[in-house]
Amino acid sequence: VMPEGNPELGEQKAYSCQFCHGATGYSLRQDYPNLNGQHAEYLFNAMKHYQKGERGSALGMMMKQQVSSLNDQDLADVAAFYSEQKPGKPE
Amino acid sequence: VMPEGNPELGEQKAYSCQFCHGATGYSLRQDYPNLNGQHAEYLFNAMKHYQKGERGSALGMMMKQQVSSLNDQDLADVAAFYSEQKPGKPE
Repeated sequence: VMPEGNPELGEQKAYSCQFCHGATGYSLRQDYPNLNGQHAEYLFNAMKHYQKGERGSALGMMMKQQVSSLNDQDLADVAAFYSEQKPGKPE
Repeated sequence: VMPEGNPELGEQKAYSCQFCHGATGYSLRQDYPNLNGQHAEYLFNAMKHYQKGERGSALGMMMKQQVSSLNDQDLADVAAFYSEQKPGKPE
């Protein structure tokens, strides 16, 4: 079950994510997903799948490393941060 | 490599997706991802991962069935359809 997420803390914990996913989750690359405005519970579940190695592609393994050191509260905070960002392409 | 996608055809081919992902990709459930406004190439790659069973969760297996009968052109059309839908929560 997902803990209550704190988006302010999530922004700090998501520092390293920006290099692939962009500052607010609109990703700079076409093959990386946009996270801004996505459902927080889906983001949390997806990161858990990566953490458990259930997404077996090369990028899946890279993501596994990225989230390996985060606990459930961290993941919920990161998920809360991105889900609260304005969806779509930033102006 | 992803073929050129046709969003009109994609809308028809995505008929069964709406029951989880919503008519234009804003999903009705918090634990299913929004697809509207997502990058087409990411959507295509994600569906290929499901097709090859690389996303091993229970929902991953359900998605595998959903996309099992689609070829790459179908997947590109479906991806084009959702990526062209307005991002965020429909008014």
